[in-house]
Amino acid sequence: MYIYADNAATTKMSRAAIEKMTPYLAECYGNPSALYSLGQRAKDALEESRETVARLIGAEPREIVFTSGGSESDNQAIRSAAEAGAKKGKRHIVSDAIEHHAVLHTLKRLEREGFEVTLVPVTPEGIVEPDVVRAAIREDTCLVTVMTANNEIGTIQPVKEIGKICRARGVLFHTDAVQAVGHIPLSVGELGVDLLSASAHKFHGPKGVGFLYAKRGTPLANLIEGGAQERGRRAGTENVAGIVAMAAALEEAVAGIERNAKRLIPLRDRLIAGLSKIPHGALNGDPVRRLPSNVNFCFEGIEGESLLLLLDDRGIAASSGSACTSGSLDPSHVLLAIGRPHGVAHGSLRLSLGEDATEEQIDYMIEATSDVVSYLRGFSPVWHDLADRKAEFVL
Amino acid sequence: MYIYADNAATTKMSRAAIEKMTPYLAECYGNPSALYSLGQRAKDALEESRETVARLIGAEPREIVFTSGGSESDNQAIRSAAEAGAKKGKRHIVSDAIEHHAVLHTLKRLEREGFEVTLVPVTPEGIVEPDVVRAAIREDTCLVTVMTANNEIGTIQPVKEIGKICRARGVLFHTDAVQAVGHIPLSVGELGVDLLSASAHKFHGPKGVGFLYAKRGTPLANLIEGGAQERGRRAGTENVAGIVAMAAALEEAVAGIERNAKRLIPLRDRLIAGLSKIPHGALNGDPVRRLPSNVNFCFEGIEGESLLLLLDDRGIAASSGSACTSGSLDPSHVLLAIGRPHGVAHGSLRLSLGEDATEEQIDYMIEATSDVVSYLRGFSPVWHDLADRKAEFVL
Repeated sequence: MYIYADNAATTKMSRAAIEKMTPYLAECYGNPSALYSLGQRAKDALEESRETVARLIGAEPREIVFTSGGSESDNQAIRSAAEAGAKKGKRHIVSDAIEHHAVLHTLKRLEREGFEVTLVPVTPEGIVEPDVVRAAIREDTCLVTVMTANNEIGTIQPVKEIGKICRARGVLFHTDAVQAVGHIPLSVGELGVDLLSASAHKFHGPKGVGFLYAKRGTPLANLIEGGAQERGRRAGTENVAGIVAMAAALEEAVAGIERNAKRLIPLRDRLIAGLSKIPHGALNGDPVRRLPSNVNFCFEGIEGESLLLLLDDRGIAASSGSACTSGSLDPSHVLLAIGRPHGVAHGSLRLSLGEDATEEQIDYMIEATSDVVSYLRGFSPVWHDLADRKAEFVL
Repeated sequence: MYIYADNAATTKMSRAAIEKMTPYLAECYGNPSALYSLGQRAKDALEESRETVARLIGAEPREIVFTSGGSESDNQAIRSAAEAGAKKGKRHIVSDAIEHHAVLHTLKRLEREGFEVTLVPVTPEGIVEPDVVRAAIREDTCLVTVMTANNEIGTIQPVKEIGKICRARGVLFHTDAVQAVGHIPLSVGELGVDLLSASAHKFHGPKGVGFLYAKRGTPLANLIEGGAQERGRRAGTENVAGIVAMAAALEEAVAGIERNAKRLIPLRDRLIAGLSKIPHGALNGDPVRRLPSNVNFCFEGIEGESLLLLLDDRGIAASSGSACTSGSLDPSHVLLAIGRPHGVAHGSLRLSLGEDATEEQIDYMIEATSDVVSYLRGFSPVWHDLADRKAEFVL
């Protein structure tokens, strides 16, 4: 059995997306800026894709800027809002402790440039509380940026409530919706966001393409200067094939949201229930307010990396948290923020289900994980040390 | 007959590139940052591609950063050098008047941020003279940026000589080689550049992917902050399929450089000779120091846009200059910089040949262009006005 359970890291391109994309590689390959028919056909495909993407998130086509992915969208959104804020003397930004690094590192850079950043804490379940955000907003706040759903622990944030607060205070609101778009119902109007970032490869589109929603009238500064593409908001020849594929993938993903949720939530909960039987382990994140596909556990006394390698041997592709920080020895900032101690945070496992997950796969993952955790604990000095002094278990 | 003669705007993906790319869409789709085998296979493909690209331009793999294209590479290279310069109190940059907008607009932005930019003039043939660059370098110059080959008029710049000057003066040197990589022999060591930008879709790779060469030790600042991909120099999940395709396309392009030049130069010169017979027209750029594929003419008394539309009717896809400025009514800054008056610069035509161009196609393009130019002049008031007062022709 081979189970790809790392769909939060990236997804397999859908057949529909590949089929839609193919003609734009070597047939309709024109530059959309060109006047001749081959270029205009590419331009038409680009604008049709823009309409599709806009419609699927409740936006207008002109509010969609195509980018190279979620990180670029996050960077552009945040830097744009900061730049606009600075012009009015507003140099304070509110965010939270469990954002993706594309957000946190952009904020770090803005701090070096003289901005002040407040990262509000989250609840032990990983929820950003609207009241906490409200309290953090100041007269000089130019931006609030809170993700729609967390990439590691899958918590779905009360974006709508935070949006209301931001509107009432006249503060721009950005949400990193990379994990949410195509996975949970979402409309920019309902969310009340001014800026929203998304990435195609998280919903069965290609890697290297994404989009940024910027509500009409929201100031947008170029991250990449140059040609007049994307109404002068993002230079560079448009990745037509990738954009067409993204639109096709999103169409399919959004159409399947309800059906997938119905199928996945019971499977997710079965997996959670099964893994909960492993002693000295605990679910990370909220049991209910979480993505239908996301399961994330900490197991005391083991190293996440060994767990992943042994699961790989058994045909399960999983991760310890964010793929973007793999290779780093630091424990997840998300797990630390929800209160997991250093040692425990190291023993994390994220299983993010694909839409085609089956009960059989779930049971196999429960069995394999239970086995591997026991096996690893068998020769873990940390575990034996803990087992000898039972009172010191955290989980 | 259908002739795609706008290969400087974008190219058709090669079969080899598509074939190499395909398995990375829905089979080997893992995130290269992941530990499991599916991720590691993607990682291997990424690093093999890096080795290929590095080898083909005479660099080391660690000197290659994958980006979303030429514009991003240009932006990152120039901003990085500027940032490093500013730290040493060096806030002067030397460039030239015929750079791509990805360079010129980045420089404009740096000017707004307090940098001083000297754009040296070019010769009437569109050559940036090394002595002029030397004279422009000051004690506080932190960067020289001169393109390898011009995207509109195809002139090949004396990059090697400029590189020597920069090395002698201890100034960082960047070259926008978007039109050159895969088209003319090129080695970063020989060129003496510290930074070099390239784009896959200009050499039969996919749109939305490119690379930046940064010589070991050259400071590189992130344009896109976030995850630790690309050794922390470019955040965002890597566009594995696109990168693999780029490497395959570059391999093929570089292998064909000599063969293509032998075939294309006579065809290009046949096209130039044929178009030269059209009265009151002139070749733009240097007749010899130019890309094997590039032909660019000005024809007095006509509008480039009408010319393009009528050529499209006859099955010829051509452009008036840079695709990135299409839709703009301003005449090309490149043509103005080589001394073409406003009115004449409006009547420009760029034909950039594909490697499969034939003599028959060349003759067809000569005939069609001659016909269309005559036809347009037939009802052009500007032309009749000129024809009445012959002394005032410019060309």
